[in-house]
Amino acid sequence: MEDLFATDRTRDLVPRIRAFIETELIPLETAGHLTGPFSKVATVLDQKRNLVKKAGLWGLQHGVDEGGLGLTLCEFGQISEVLATSPFGHYTFNCQAPDIGNMELLHKHASDELKQRFLEPLREGRIRSCFSMTEPEFAGSNPTQLGTTAVLDGNAYVINGRKWFTSSADGAAFAIVMAVTTPDAAPHRRASMILVPTDAPGFRLVRNISIMGDSGDHWGSHSEVVYENVRVPIENRIGDEGLGFVLAQERLGPGRIHHCMRWIGISERCFDLMCSRAATREIEPGVRLGEKQFIQGFIAESRAEIDAARLMVLRTAHNIDRFGAASVRNEISAIKFFVANTMLKVVDRAIQTFGAMGITDDLLLAWYYRHERGARIYDGADEVHKSALARSILKEYGLDTKKKNG
Amino acid sequence: MEDLFATDRTRDLVPRIRAFIETELIPLETAGHLTGPFSKVATVLDQKRNLVKKAGLWGLQHGVDEGGLGLTLCEFGQISEVLATSPFGHYTFNCQAPDIGNMELLHKHASDELKQRFLEPLREGRIRSCFSMTEPEFAGSNPTQLGTTAVLDGNAYVINGRKWFTSSADGAAFAIVMAVTTPDAAPHRRASMILVPTDAPGFRLVRNISIMGDSGDHWGSHSEVVYENVRVPIENRIGDEGLGFVLAQERLGPGRIHHCMRWIGISERCFDLMCSRAATREIEPGVRLGEKQFIQGFIAESRAEIDAARLMVLRTAHNIDRFGAASVRNEISAIKFFVANTMLKVVDRAIQTFGAMGITDDLLLAWYYRHERGARIYDGADEVHKSALARSILKEYGLDTKKKNG
Amino acid sequence: MEDLFATDRTRDLVPRIRAFIETELIPLETAGHLTGPFSKVATVLDQKRNLVKKAGLWGLQHGVDEGGLGLTLCEFGQISEVLATSPFGHYTFNCQAPDIGNMELLHKHASDELKQRFLEPLREGRIRSCFSMTEPEFAGSNPTQLGTTAVLDGNAYVINGRKWFTSSADGAAFAIVMAVTTPDAAPHRRASMILVPTDAPGFRLVRNISIMGDSGDHWGSHSEVVYENVRVPIENRIGDEGLGFVLAQERLGPGRIHHCMRWIGISERCFDLMCSRAATREIEPGVRLGEKQFIQGFIAESRAEIDAARLMVLRTAHNIDRFGAASVRNEISAIKFFVANTMLKVVDRAIQTFGAMGITDDLLLAWYYRHERGARIYDGADEVHKSALARSILKEYGLDTKKKNG
Amino acid sequence: MEDLFATDRTRDLVPRIRAFIETELIPLETAGHLTGPFSKVATVLDQKRNLVKKAGLWGLQHGVDEGGLGLTLCEFGQISEVLATSPFGHYTFNCQAPDIGNMELLHKHASDELKQRFLEPLREGRIRSCFSMTEPEFAGSNPTQLGTTAVLDGNAYVINGRKWFTSSADGAAFAIVMAVTTPDAAPHRRASMILVPTDAPGFRLVRNISIMGDSGDHWGSHSEVVYENVRVPIENRIGDEGLGFVLAQERLGPGRIHHCMRWIGISERCFDLMCSRAATREIEPGVRLGEKQFIQGFIAESRAEIDAARLMVLRTAHNIDRFGAASVRNEISAIKFFVANTMLKVVDRAIQTFGAMGITDDLLLAWYYRHERGARIYDGADEVHKSALARSILKEYGLDTKKKNG
Repeated sequence: MEDLFATDRTRDLVPRIRAFIETELIPLETAGHLTGPFSKVATVLDQKRNLVKKAGLWGLQHGVDEGGLGLTLCEFGQISEVLATSPFGHYTFNCQAPDIGNMELLHKHASDELKQRFLEPLREGRIRSCFSMTEPEFAGSNPTQLGTTAVLDGNAYVINGRKWFTSSADGAAFAIVMAVTTPDAAPHRRASMILVPTDAPGFRLVRNISIMGDSGDHWGSHSEVVYENVRVPIENRIGDEGLGFVLAQERLGPGRIHHCMRWIGISERCFDLMCSRAATREIEPGVRLGEKQFIQGFIAESRAEIDAARLMVLRTAHNIDRFGAASVRNEISAIKFFVANTMLKVVDRAIQTFGAMGITDDLLLAWYYRHERGARIYDGADEVHKSALARSILKEYGLDTKKKNG
Repeated sequence: MEDLFATDRTRDLVPRIRAFIETELIPLETAGHLTGPFSKVATVLDQKRNLVKKAGLWGLQHGVDEGGLGLTLCEFGQISEVLATSPFGHYTFNCQAPDIGNMELLHKHASDELKQRFLEPLREGRIRSCFSMTEPEFAGSNPTQLGTTAVLDGNAYVINGRKWFTSSADGAAFAIVMAVTTPDAAPHRRASMILVPTDAPGFRLVRNISIMGDSGDHWGSHSEVVYENVRVPIENRIGDEGLGFVLAQERLGPGRIHHCMRWIGISERCFDLMCSRAATREIEPGVRLGEKQFIQGFIAESRAEIDAARLMVLRTAHNIDRFGAASVRNEISAIKFFVANTMLKVVDRAIQTFGAMGITDDLLLAWYYRHERGARIYDGADEVHKSALARSILKEYGLDTKKKNG
Repeated sequence: MEDLFATDRTRDLVPRIRAFIETELIPLETAGHLTGPFSKVATVLDQKRNLVKKAGLWGLQHGVDEGGLGLTLCEFGQISEVLATSPFGHYTFNCQAPDIGNMELLHKHASDELKQRFLEPLREGRIRSCFSMTEPEFAGSNPTQLGTTAVLDGNAYVINGRKWFTSSADGAAFAIVMAVTTPDAAPHRRASMILVPTDAPGFRLVRNISIMGDSGDHWGSHSEVVYENVRVPIENRIGDEGLGFVLAQERLGPGRIHHCMRWIGISERCFDLMCSRAATREIEPGVRLGEKQFIQGFIAESRAEIDAARLMVLRTAHNIDRFGAASVRNEISAIKFFVANTMLKVVDRAIQTFGAMGITDDLLLAWYYRHERGARIYDGADEVHKSALARSILKEYGLDTKKKNG
Repeated sequence: MEDLFATDRTRDLVPRIRAFIETELIPLETAGHLTGPFSKVATVLDQKRNLVKKAGLWGLQHGVDEGGLGLTLCEFGQISEVLATSPFGHYTFNCQAPDIGNMELLHKHASDELKQRFLEPLREGRIRSCFSMTEPEFAGSNPTQLGTTAVLDGNAYVINGRKWFTSSADGAAFAIVMAVTTPDAAPHRRASMILVPTDAPGFRLVRNISIMGDSGDHWGSHSEVVYENVRVPIENRIGDEGLGFVLAQERLGPGRIHHCMRWIGISERCFDLMCSRAATREIEPGVRLGEKQFIQGFIAESRAEIDAARLMVLRTAHNIDRFGAASVRNEISAIKFFVANTMLKVVDRAIQTFGAMGITDDLLLAWYYRHERGARIYDGADEVHKSALARSILKEYGLDTKKKNG
């Protein structure tokens, strides 16, 4: 816990959550749970959710107007880090992506009817949802390129298109789809977000994409989805027409903080495993692994890098709280690649420290190694963020590369 | 193909093998085969083996006295690279570890009876074998630490111990076990290699260890094995008593070349995928991914590093051919960490180039990412080899760190 | 300026100092000043010192009891960063090492007479001083190994020994020498700090050590010094007998912050040069350097790393202010290697961005490249700090490597 | 010496040259020689040149038709490595750039009169020369951008322009200047090479550019040169009109090999210093530096990387010998950045191993650190070569980026 950003609320909540995770979730990290279908572990986690509710720790992300604590982004970031020290933390506390983002979207921009029908059960953990944006035909580096369309026909949108990496679609009650509604508008004003119940005719989950050996199911799915003449009432649009990217942009700051703090939690967990191993593993009689400088180097560099990463993210969260996300866009770009790379380095060093055991599913590390490689890709690849950050900086120096990509 | 080391035989064989792989094996790289149980793909591969035999490409590793071509290590290394451009190449050509090493061991050091009973069917691909050395209780960095014992009782050894990472044990017909036979000898003279049929009473495959999300089966298994009063005739010993480490050492040079050339084949395959993607993927209208300098950097650095790695390995193979492995021990250490790291960097860059598709099992890359992380660990971790190499060099400068580990 | 740690005082001072540096010091960065003897530029800087005094910016480091502002360490760190954007900043503001540390030592631990004779003129910038600790015979990684002795003879110490890297000795009025006074005490209680006027008989400046092509003189000297039966009164001891290392330790926290913030100032200056170049240099008609992704990568990574480094250092300073240096020893180790490496990477990238001009003395970058390479060595090499940090962490995990070096 | 490429001639020459360097040149590596003006050390080296001649080792680079040994490029590369283990090697053996390249140019393309007047004394070491190509106004990444013109006026060229980094101009007898002679031709056919005696009216050495603290003089100069209406007879053109870039291209392959092998020689020298230090330096009683894994890591990685680099370069030289430079352009690009980076890493690690002594001019390392940073810049920056290599590879994959820079 970084003292600099600690508040009375985080000082109260963090230890309680940490204790919960240690008692209830870490024992669940068996090879069976880590390699089996998620639906299996979800059965167990759903019981743990009751304990979370009993402990008064449910809905930590909600604002005061939603009956929540109204934590600042910086406070919630610190919560998110602790949750991430178990791969099951966010799910158990109902703070998992994409539901957490969808809840926020619905809360802010949906009609009361939609709220009642979808937001309420989502908050209670009775249903799940997905977010349907990325398309296989277009590069993620330019999100405004979209093939999916939603055409008004009377009082309904008729949606057609193909999406993939629609995370958690398997078993979700609804999707929020990004679709072009006003094709002739400026690129950033063409799309809208529309809520589509997954039981709507024409919504078809083609497959759960197998990723890094995990076939994916339930919340752990990354699905390919086809929309074929899916018809939903115009009221299912979230926010005004053409504001899809504006709303996505709005999510971006908080979403980035959530991701980055989750990565820091993962880093801390791996760091802890690495140090435990180094301190106890005998490599020859009387000599522990941690006496070796190579391992000491892993530990020291990881410690410095994780601390640096956390300070970067919490500073950014703090600045979003104070000044809004728009004013710290450079920071929001920087943390993306900085923290993802830090995490992956720490995971890698921890595996190396464990040797052969590090690559087995007896241990959590291989799970992170597989499931988090995507961190340098999704939500903007390293290369996209580095280029964006540099171009934004160079603009202050008089170079506008807007129309010149390098 | 590196012209410097090409011979008439490699110039003949390499293109033929390459064509075979392209036609017969690359089409097998489906998500089903890459994530399913190996036994399933093995059924298909066993048919392909017949095609290999028909094409006159079976048993490429064998010496002239075994009815083979008698390729030099340097020549076979070049074959091994091509085989490795498919994850199914070595298996299909019956050159896969650990069988290739076991064949060599039996050929050189086993009794005629053992040869007839085990070597013949192994060469023909009718049975498989495993090699049982690593133990969970002892660090792999010091292989002479062994808990498994083989005690003479009349004309039989009685073997007790626990091994793990006994690769390919699931379904193997026999194991070659490293066990302490002369506990009072010098550390390097304590153990012997003993052939144990897997149907011997007391041989127990505890489990296939799940690794990086792959539960493992058949040839693709990494098993935990218990030996409980396993009784085998003294004739099952491979080589003289106490020579276990000497024989292991003998395997080391060729085994290292096989591994390293396999990694180079993997690197080339990933490089090829990366370049294809860069040349064809449109990231915005009229702009291909390969026009971006970040991607160009991936390609240029990979090209240089793979070439360097290959030269290192083939030079080492060539020197083993000429002078024997003992005279180039430093080179043999150096290629281990140099090539493993090169491969993993190339795999990682290729994934990054593909973006989201790179982490899916639709593509081969994720398979390599998961299954080859171990390259920096097994057969001596990076750290062990770096330390060994440096200490060997420093000895020439007058510093003997034998009894001083740093 | 990092808003998180800004105070009313830094908000007032930083822009004023920045303006001063831009107007008065940056124009002095000519090849002549950057490669010539320091005494030459010092003549100019001594005039600038008058301007500093006039501007009311003299003595920024002093406590309230010294007639200064009593800035916190965290505040002064932010000042130090700005000063470091010119290689002449600290000297001009009389905040340069080793004088700043010596002033603090004398202020806290010297007799009134010593203060009057040495501290007063030092504060006023009329004399300079040096700190004499490192010895050529002993590795810097273990500072308690010392060959220099100070033996009591009546009311005087008789000092004998050889030191090197006694920075700024050339032209200094006095040295503070670390010498063994109680050889039979515990290692950390053996040495005392003693003030030696450089005109004392037996004090001999053997040579200014040429470093990275800079022969060194005046404040810019790194000297080898011999003490031959140098006799000074017992009152010249700073602090109690045997407390040399305790006092050195006391300096360590603040000294580390000063160094690290100086490196961040250097990083920012080089970053600014790099961005200016990238934004303006045409590499072919109509194409600016900054449009190239390789350069964008330099810029983006540098921005993230410098920000991270600054947050790490200011957090540490803030914690020293609140809890004392002893409680954040790990942080103090971590920033040493983290920030030094960040700086050297940024300097290197800036040079690469400038191409051939980057290595000329027409530009500041080559100066930093040469003069700051030592940052990874002095005051504890990277390797020493990494090992120390890791061992301190591992202690919390139950491994005490005190007597076991790895 | 890499056995793979050794020939009878290199087996004979290399040890003799090595012995010469150890006896005659290494003792010259004093701070005085390393930091003083080159003219001072040149006086000594000129005497050593007589010893070289006596030893029959003069003119090793010359072809049989020039009375030399006619070494292959691959053989001479191995000689060049040994020469580079002293910073004074190439000069003493009269194989130094740019004279070695100019000799080759004159030998192949100059008139007999020019040869008699300039080539003869150059071969004998009686005069020196320089090569005048780079211009301050244009980026080195595109060498065809040139502002210097040579206009025919009767039987003479009238040359006007400004050059910098005209290496070794100070004291040179002549320059070979690249100037535009046919401005309307295709970009690669616009320029010619013209020999300009430095005493020609209008040739003006503006200054020796100070680089990394070395003001530069004599052979060690990097000069800014102005050509103001310099008039030379048309016969002073080297090769046909408009072939300037063709001839430069012709030099490129051999020149690259010379550079790269020189860098490998430097790497080996630093490696040797590093190992000596590691084996002998006591860091605490009874413990040598080389027992520390961090240092072992430096040594092991350096060993592997230098070996890899050498194999890359000698393979390329061998291929140029066999197939010509045009057929291995990718290799020639790859070695540039691969070897330069290897060298700079090794120099850096060696400095780190020596600690404070490593940055002093008491040792050779600081000299290399300063003088070789340019290796990643001159003759095409890393970034330029990486991009060129990748684009050449991607062409084989169907992407022609010729008109699209990224």
